[in-house]
Amino acid sequence: MIISESALRAFTQNIFLAMGCSNEHAALAADVLILSDLRGIDSHGVARLIGYVRLWENKRINTRPNITIVHETPTTATVDGDAGLGLIVAPFAMRLAIQKAELYGSGWVSVRNSNHFGIAGYHTLMAVEKDMIGFAMTNASPLVAPTFSNERLLGTNPMCYAFPAGKYPPVVVDMATSAAANGKLEIAQRLGKQVPEGWIQDKDGKFTTDPHALKKGGSLLPLGGDREHGSHKGFGLSATVDILSAVLSGANYGPWAPPFVSFLDPPADPVGKGIGHFVGAMRVDGFRPVDEFKAHLDNWIRRFKSASTVDPAQKVIIPGEPELEAQTDRKKNGILLIDAVVNDLNGLAAKFGISHL
Amino acid sequence: MIISESALRAFTQNIFLAMGCSNEHAALAADVLILSDLRGIDSHGVARLIGYVRLWENKRINTRPNITIVHETPTTATVDGDAGLGLIVAPFAMRLAIQKAELYGSGWVSVRNSNHFGIAGYHTLMAVEKDMIGFAMTNASPLVAPTFSNERLLGTNPMCYAFPAGKYPPVVVDMATSAAANGKLEIAQRLGKQVPEGWIQDKDGKFTTDPHALKKGGSLLPLGGDREHGSHKGFGLSATVDILSAVLSGANYGPWAPPFVSFLDPPADPVGKGIGHFVGAMRVDGFRPVDEFKAHLDNWIRRFKSASTVDPAQKVIIPGEPELEAQTDRKKNGILLIDAVVNDLNGLAAKFGISHL
Repeated sequence: MIISESALRAFTQNIFLAMGCSNEHAALAADVLILSDLRGIDSHGVARLIGYVRLWENKRINTRPNITIVHETPTTATVDGDAGLGLIVAPFAMRLAIQKAELYGSGWVSVRNSNHFGIAGYHTLMAVEKDMIGFAMTNASPLVAPTFSNERLLGTNPMCYAFPAGKYPPVVVDMATSAAANGKLEIAQRLGKQVPEGWIQDKDGKFTTDPHALKKGGSLLPLGGDREHGSHKGFGLSATVDILSAVLSGANYGPWAPPFVSFLDPPADPVGKGIGHFVGAMRVDGFRPVDEFKAHLDNWIRRFKSASTVDPAQKVIIPGEPELEAQTDRKKNGILLIDAVVNDLNGLAAKFGISHL
Repeated sequence: MIISESALRAFTQNIFLAMGCSNEHAALAADVLILSDLRGIDSHGVARLIGYVRLWENKRINTRPNITIVHETPTTATVDGDAGLGLIVAPFAMRLAIQKAELYGSGWVSVRNSNHFGIAGYHTLMAVEKDMIGFAMTNASPLVAPTFSNERLLGTNPMCYAFPAGKYPPVVVDMATSAAANGKLEIAQRLGKQVPEGWIQDKDGKFTTDPHALKKGGSLLPLGGDREHGSHKGFGLSATVDILSAVLSGANYGPWAPPFVSFLDPPADPVGKGIGHFVGAMRVDGFRPVDEFKAHLDNWIRRFKSASTVDPAQKVIIPGEPELEAQTDRKKNGILLIDAVVNDLNGLAAKFGISHL
């Protein structure tokens, strides 16, 4: 099914309203999810809506949160999301970081007591719009084993860095710190395909190509796959995300991070509140004039785009470029939803008594 | 040859003095190199001394630099290193970041017109000593091809994050954003061994296990190795380091970064000055009380150290832990130098007319 941005946005907003969100929050939460679908990151868009609803039904998401700043200095702060939607809490934190950057050059906010925040790119792009460099990361449900271990102790813990360019789209590096994100496994499961070696291991710590291995006690692997190929680096990056997002804020870290899926209960011995995020903004003109920076970043992009490639038909891809291409295309031509997602969404419509898609 | 820390430090300091460094700068530069040897990162310690001397002989390093702050806000700054040793310039930048963090919670400094800064961990540990979180990264000689390309456009561009713990050593994530650092290739070359697939490609972009492939037009690969295993993530991280260190500061970026080896001339069409670094510091107590943070980071470390492992004899390694073990051991028992390094150092002693090792 192909649906227009505006129709999908209105539908999504209605679901959040039905969950009890304010008008403002429903519009913001829908905006985060729709940007994900527009940018071609289908795993993080409306496909997740049913997951948020289930967590809300399990009383793990508060749709009327009182989000507070619990501690701050001129350029740092800790925010308590009051168990709100990460889709609401993270933009609150990023607005605070941007305000601090406007006054002092940079702003950094660690967040506790939150939930899944959608695509990290949404939050960093808020900074880019102000000619700032944006940072965003979050911890997540434990699915990834550290190097040498067969225990799932870390989330796919994404990190995102975004930079405003001039003539070219912003450079947006938005990546899971695992070898592959869970969404890629789900695609392989649906297609009945094997996955490459180096993405997952079975419960005994052996590489497997079975996309269902996670359900059998296996785990995702850090970026790098195994030690020889640098998995200790993927583990180190994931640890960095976990510490900045959760140890620093007072959220749950490592294996204590509450799972996104509602059928798994959060650990009974929490070490903090909810999951954590870390966001930041730095004014480009805190370092050099914006036009100079953008001219040089354009030159950087131009040089990499024109690099010699192994296959002349396959150019170097600038991070963020395919997502902006998808966004332009889908804004014009609509968003393709697979049947499983349409069915989920229409199930939600029936549940809440709103018009189906 | 096994040499005591103090003897190697005095020797190294004498070389820097002979190059014309002030007493203070010679002591600092030696301190950075010696910490690298103590921590077991032999590739970045005194083994590099001959490289610095050669660059100085080629008039590419200024041993009497006038390091200046060219632009700043309360929490950001750009520093011009005046072609000084990165071993001097980066600590200057980190001290500035720490001062800003003391006043405003965080401090961020982008550096241009510098040279190789040694181990990133040295600089981040300066912040850790003040109960701050330390960040350090640098761009470097182009040796790494972005995903799909067979051109060397990026350095091994390390990123480092360091966190103060309580009972345990600091967590120090210090990693090249390539699949393997150049030092690992050099070890394989010396031993006449092949390297694993996924570290390097030949000039046509095919994986090769030949550790000499770089000399034949090949390139290092980003962390991940190939696209299927996430090399676009390694490329994105490396791009982030390049942009924060060089596009933001006004240094040379991408293929314009001047090579560390003196026998290769810098590009004739520079886009900036020297190479660039990016360092930062954030006060832990800008987010939560230091003792709370340290207690939770200790708990994090404890949980990961006690994780179930595939091979019960091989525990999970906490980033920074092996380096501190090496440091404790080598402080007591001395530093092992291989013959090639001893010969290089004694060659320098003869050149400068100082006592040999």
